[in-house]
Amino acid sequence: MVEYITQTLDAVFHALSDPTRRAMLHRLSTSERTVSELATPFNMSLAGASKHIKVLEAAGLVRRHVQGRTHICALQAARLAEAQEWLRYYEQFWEERLDDLENILRAEDRALAEKARHGDRKDPKTKMDSKE
Amino acid sequence: MVEYITQTLDAVFHALSDPTRRAMLHRLSTSERTVSELATPFNMSLAGASKHIKVLEAAGLVRRHVQGRTHICALQAARLAEAQEWLRYYEQFWEERLDDLENILRAEDRALAEKARHGDRKDPKTKMDSKE
Repeated sequence: MVEYITQTLDAVFHALSDPTRRAMLHRLSTSERTVSELATPFNMSLAGASKHIKVLEAAGLVRRHVQGRTHICALQAARLAEAQEWLRYYEQFWEERLDDLENILRAEDRALAEKARHGDRKDPKTKMDSKE
Repeated sequence: MVEYITQTLDAVFHALSDPTRRAMLHRLSTSERTVSELATPFNMSLAGASKHIKVLEAAGLVRRHVQGRTHICALQAARLAEAQEWLRYYEQFWEERLDDLENILRAEDRALAEKARHGDRKDPKTKMDSKE
């Protein structure tokens, strides 16, 4: 089971590592498309598009069915859920970082406010000094 | 900006497509580690481990600093947030599928219950028939 999930994640993350394949998934999210419809916006040969679609199919992200002589592709999003599940564990770490960043910014704000108060107190004296 | 995010996602998803690199990130999530500590559980040469770590560094997922002669690696999780953000758009599609699945299962339950009721009604008659 763990082995299966590992191989699935390998294939899913590999499929997502290419901008053309991510763009194809995005176009499939609005409707099913033929292979040539998927190829068109990328000025890509059918063979080139088909290669990318095969990678998406191997990852289980796209299902292809044949109607007459036309190959129609559809999004299968379930495998993306497994990728997101993997990433979810790491949320705690980037949230920690955001908390750290917030604390740093707040500390800086306090330091600036403190400096401004000291500045206010000093300013009149400085002005008086300069008048003397 | 879009171009930057695209390249970042390419590198992040590529880094995550390998089980050794995912396991390294997991080990770094509990504490910083030297390159040789990262190599050990995989029976891997330092050169082999270093290659994987370079891919993780290129994706901005690991930061390496040098203490004397030791290279120490630390997890940088923020880039994973960008990957999760990309995946978040697709949640609606797998949730739809889960809803579909739930509806199918409920319809099947109803059909089975209906069948059982019909069966109950028929059974006595069948028994009576068989007695005749």
